[in-house]
Amino acid sequence: MVPLTDTPLTRDGKILILAYDHGLEHGPSDFEAVPETMDPETVWDIATHDAVTSFAVQKGIAETYYPSYRDDVNLLGKVNGTSNLWMGEYDSAVNWTVESAADLGADAIGFTLYGGSNNEVEMAEEFRDVQEAARDHDLPVVMWSYPRGQGVKNDTKDEVIAYGSRLALELGADVAKIKYPGSQEGMEWAVDAAGPVKVVMSGGSKTDDRSFLESVNAVLDAGGSGLAVGRNVWQRENAMEMLDALEALIFEEASVDDALAHLG
Amino acid sequence: MVPLTDTPLTRDGKILILAYDHGLEHGPSDFEAVPETMDPETVWDIATHDAVTSFAVQKGIAETYYPSYRDDVNLLGKVNGTSNLWMGEYDSAVNWTVESAADLGADAIGFTLYGGSNNEVEMAEEFRDVQEAARDHDLPVVMWSYPRGQGVKNDTKDEVIAYGSRLALELGADVAKIKYPGSQEGMEWAVDAAGPVKVVMSGGSKTDDRSFLESVNAVLDAGGSGLAVGRNVWQRENAMEMLDALEALIFEEASVDDALAHLG
Amino acid sequence: MVPLTDTPLTRDGKILILAYDHGLEHGPSDFEAVPETMDPETVWDIATHDAVTSFAVQKGIAETYYPSYRDDVNLLGKVNGTSNLWMGEYDSAVNWTVESAADLGADAIGFTLYGGSNNEVEMAEEFRDVQEAARDHDLPVVMWSYPRGQGVKNDTKDEVIAYGSRLALELGADVAKIKYPGSQEGMEWAVDAAGPVKVVMSGGSKTDDRSFLESVNAVLDAGGSGLAVGRNVWQRENAMEMLDALEALIFEEASVDDALAHLG
Amino acid sequence: MVPLTDTPLTRDGKILILAYDHGLEHGPSDFEAVPETMDPETVWDIATHDAVTSFAVQKGIAETYYPSYRDDVNLLGKVNGTSNLWMGEYDSAVNWTVESAADLGADAIGFTLYGGSNNEVEMAEEFRDVQEAARDHDLPVVMWSYPRGQGVKNDTKDEVIAYGSRLALELGADVAKIKYPGSQEGMEWAVDAAGPVKVVMSGGSKTDDRSFLESVNAVLDAGGSGLAVGRNVWQRENAMEMLDALEALIFEEASVDDALAHLG
Amino acid sequence: MVPLTDTPLTRDGKILILAYDHGLEHGPSDFEAVPETMDPETVWDIATHDAVTSFAVQKGIAETYYPSYRDDVNLLGKVNGTSNLWMGEYDSAVNWTVESAADLGADAIGFTLYGGSNNEVEMAEEFRDVQEAARDHDLPVVMWSYPRGQGVKNDTKDEVIAYGSRLALELGADVAKIKYPGSQEGMEWAVDAAGPVKVVMSGGSKTDDRSFLESVNAVLDAGGSGLAVGRNVWQRENAMEMLDALEALIFEEASVDDALAHLG
Repeated sequence: MVPLTDTPLTRDGKILILAYDHGLEHGPSDFEAVPETMDPETVWDIATHDAVTSFAVQKGIAETYYPSYRDDVNLLGKVNGTSNLWMGEYDSAVNWTVESAADLGADAIGFTLYGGSNNEVEMAEEFRDVQEAARDHDLPVVMWSYPRGQGVKNDTKDEVIAYGSRLALELGADVAKIKYPGSQEGMEWAVDAAGPVKVVMSGGSKTDDRSFLESVNAVLDAGGSGLAVGRNVWQRENAMEMLDALEALIFEEASVDDALAHLG
Repeated sequence: MVPLTDTPLTRDGKILILAYDHGLEHGPSDFEAVPETMDPETVWDIATHDAVTSFAVQKGIAETYYPSYRDDVNLLGKVNGTSNLWMGEYDSAVNWTVESAADLGADAIGFTLYGGSNNEVEMAEEFRDVQEAARDHDLPVVMWSYPRGQGVKNDTKDEVIAYGSRLALELGADVAKIKYPGSQEGMEWAVDAAGPVKVVMSGGSKTDDRSFLESVNAVLDAGGSGLAVGRNVWQRENAMEMLDALEALIFEEASVDDALAHLG
Repeated sequence: MVPLTDTPLTRDGKILILAYDHGLEHGPSDFEAVPETMDPETVWDIATHDAVTSFAVQKGIAETYYPSYRDDVNLLGKVNGTSNLWMGEYDSAVNWTVESAADLGADAIGFTLYGGSNNEVEMAEEFRDVQEAARDHDLPVVMWSYPRGQGVKNDTKDEVIAYGSRLALELGADVAKIKYPGSQEGMEWAVDAAGPVKVVMSGGSKTDDRSFLESVNAVLDAGGSGLAVGRNVWQRENAMEMLDALEALIFEEASVDDALAHLG
Repeated sequence: MVPLTDTPLTRDGKILILAYDHGLEHGPSDFEAVPETMDPETVWDIATHDAVTSFAVQKGIAETYYPSYRDDVNLLGKVNGTSNLWMGEYDSAVNWTVESAADLGADAIGFTLYGGSNNEVEMAEEFRDVQEAARDHDLPVVMWSYPRGQGVKNDTKDEVIAYGSRLALELGADVAKIKYPGSQEGMEWAVDAAGPVKVVMSGGSKTDDRSFLESVNAVLDAGGSGLAVGRNVWQRENAMEMLDALEALIFEEASVDDALAHLG
Repeated sequence: MVPLTDTPLTRDGKILILAYDHGLEHGPSDFEAVPETMDPETVWDIATHDAVTSFAVQKGIAETYYPSYRDDVNLLGKVNGTSNLWMGEYDSAVNWTVESAADLGADAIGFTLYGGSNNEVEMAEEFRDVQEAARDHDLPVVMWSYPRGQGVKNDTKDEVIAYGSRLALELGADVAKIKYPGSQEGMEWAVDAAGPVKVVMSGGSKTDDRSFLESVNAVLDAGGSGLAVGRNVWQRENAMEMLDALEALIFEEASVDDALAHLG
């Protein structure tokens, strides 16, 4: 097992994952705000920014474009995911084998676990296979750890979110991607619960610049290792400037005000 | 991965798939209009037309006839499918392994995904295995991407159809076969959503000559790569002339009027 | 793939399968009419008649007796089947692997598909594995194609029966065993729907001599390739004479009256 | 396939299986009558009696004690079984692979099939794998064939019991272990239905000496090959004497009265 | 099969398992009483105490820390487990393959079986695979044998608990970890039911020092082999002293009073 900090997934121990699996998870309507983002090339270009430690996409987006971006982008193969066309208890199809992702040259593997779903047992067993295959290929594993489902009354409670980050530690992930709980205190709990597993905040829907950067800062203050972000970057006209700001904030220890200065 | 345009599935980047899996999907009543089409040989002969870039059939139809048509027809092995005898949430049996199709000499693989079905997760995982096996054999993959099922209130909405073509891109297909949405605008969205994945319109029930060719033309105008057609060709007495017309329209950039001239 | 007519399953292109899986499908009460038929040896002896192109039995009956009849009987390994002790949607357990049947020396493989059952998808996928394994061993495959189940309102309709024989063609069987529809016309449709797949009538319950032979004759007149018969042979005291009659009718093109002359 | 009579499972063609899987199937309360039988060693010692052709136990009981009894006991590895703690349609977990049983030195394999259960199809497919693996290791197979479950209104009817013994023949077992039907006539039917498969009566709850030996005698008179017995031996203080009696009855053709003389 | 007493799991035939899978089974709220125990290192340090014969953790906790504690801690890889976020019939995901645990250097394997759950059959079959893989790696197996679920009205009844320890014997475990029944008599029954399988009491929620040590003493008096303990050790400020006390009690045959003297 290669130490995580020796892999492309981190930079000085910090992490900025750019995520672009929205076409699968939400469908093309997620691209309506900035139509050119429906074209994966637009977002691959954004992913070449030095601030991005890895780019999380599904198999098809990876196979089609990664060969052209191999030198400039670290690939995080998101191996499960599902559309929001169907209804029913939370679940996620395993769309990509680790073997295939490794053959393509992926630098890390991503997997969603819905703890608390009636499908938790099956998903945890799928995670086992993915995690062990990733170990065989020396690939770090990021768990999108989102407790939700019939058994989870309130998925924004501090305790539930901290349980999610703990699951990442217990089950063998290297990084936990979690929702931001309501408070700094909640985030600290979640970071502590994960032990040495690095915790990154899931970016969520687009908000205004300052709010967004302040939430990232709060995550860092709480001991978090960074951010996994999608729409809050590529739904902005000034995506590259936002990445400049995030780079300052996350990797260069700038203040929120200094980071904001990167935005026009 | 061989570029799609270097495979028999395309001709100058355009596609005309002739489909003949109706005996499985709809049963023999589909052949009543033109009884001789119940005999596969009749339709294999039609498939030898130069306009047809590939012929989509199930395993049994392929095993029995392809050896005699190997030199004249490109085989698209449709590996899943099911009868309409049963009722229940949309699903499709995997009737043919990619290994067996490749052994027979298939030039491409076809797979139906019902996004939005309660069986979406299982079907997506079956697609994963089919797609990765196809990659191992350097075979392009066509996804019949038809969102439908309990979760899909309206499967003709532009957004739903565009979601379907996006699924083909995200999950790793090379071509998306989709239903024609109500409008050119809808088709454009679907084509855009698929990125570099080629989009072909599914022919549907038989209509009159001009309407049919106009809808094909609209697909091409919207950026689509062509057509997958069954009954609109082989349920016509003049199937070969219709293929002449489609060849003119799709591969030779003829107008609808010029194309219509091929029909008696 | 060896041409079917080069295999022991056919004789001059015609087929007479003797079936004896009733102990599994119906239980020992099927043997009450002629008690000695409960002893498999009685029926194996009948199966040595030259008219019988193959003898269809389950694994246990084959393993126990086939070694003694190897020179005189062609073995059709019926690899799935189930008791009628349970209730529930139509299904059939796969009781025998093709590998094991081939090791024993089986000459052909038999498989029941209940198209229209809620288990159709699963059964079709089991058929895929059986059919492809049979191909690997150069064994022809007979599909007992009986549409029935929750989705099938009327399993004696011509269209439903023709759909059944078409499924045999589409999914890759070499022979379709179907129920006799109400009429010659229905049988012709079913034969046509199967294309080059040979169609045999399933014998059903015991009837009187003339009615039985006339129905066989009707099948032949409709283009059918013969018969799969169980109780109509071995529930008769004069089973061997009935096989003489069937031999005349099926392989020697005798009239029903001439065939009847073989019966005392 | 080694002839059954050349294996340790039979002695002069007759069978006496001592069964001791009650700890799994019924729990420790089965041992309350004779507390020392909770200790497996007590029953292994009983199993060394020459009358016992094989001793049926689950994996754990076999792994722990068989190495010490290898020279004196023939091991019948009972590979499925389940507790009675749960409720629900009849089913049985496969707790032991044939490979592992064979590695330990098992002389035969035992498997329960609940024909008529909603789980019959799945159980029959598990039996297929067990039976074929046993064939690969030249191990005879005993089927505990007990029709029961939602579809079986009356599991003591002659016809149902005979169906059970027929299932053992059809599916490829070497010995059928069945419940004693109400009458000698019923037993004869069950023995006939099994053809060359040997039929043994399942011992059931403890009864008085004479009744028990008379029922065994009736089984032999009906053509049965012997007995599988548990509580009727090891719940007696004089277990070894009862085995003397059974030895006389089963292997030495003694009368019931003569057999009874072995009991103090 | 290596005798259990030759493995690190026992010391003079006695066992003290320290368990720390609460982050998975109960979530981070279990660590609130003693916040530093959320950090696995705190508990790994406790596990270095000589009294601890093995330390039971999930895969992630093992992979991350075991390499640093290899010389001082015997690793018991707990290979299944699940969160309490979801509701539904008792079940447990297999989160870790035996192969992976063995590669890491695990000294023993732990597995939870919920006898009486509607998932018992599936869990027993998972146990089969785990147990047989463990045998292949010469690793002893500890079964957390907790009857519960829809079929189990009262999981604290002596008979139910004894059934649980018997399941460990029947299915092939080396050690049974059970809940303490209400009485010494109940514990004796459970120990007897397990035969040569060693029985350890599951520690349960934290209680006061004397009560806790007295319950351990009762287990030893009843013939039990020791204890599996979590919160009753690491939720104490004086965890190491408590281990001194347990060491005296379990391995040095001290009285409860003498053992209590180790506590400040």
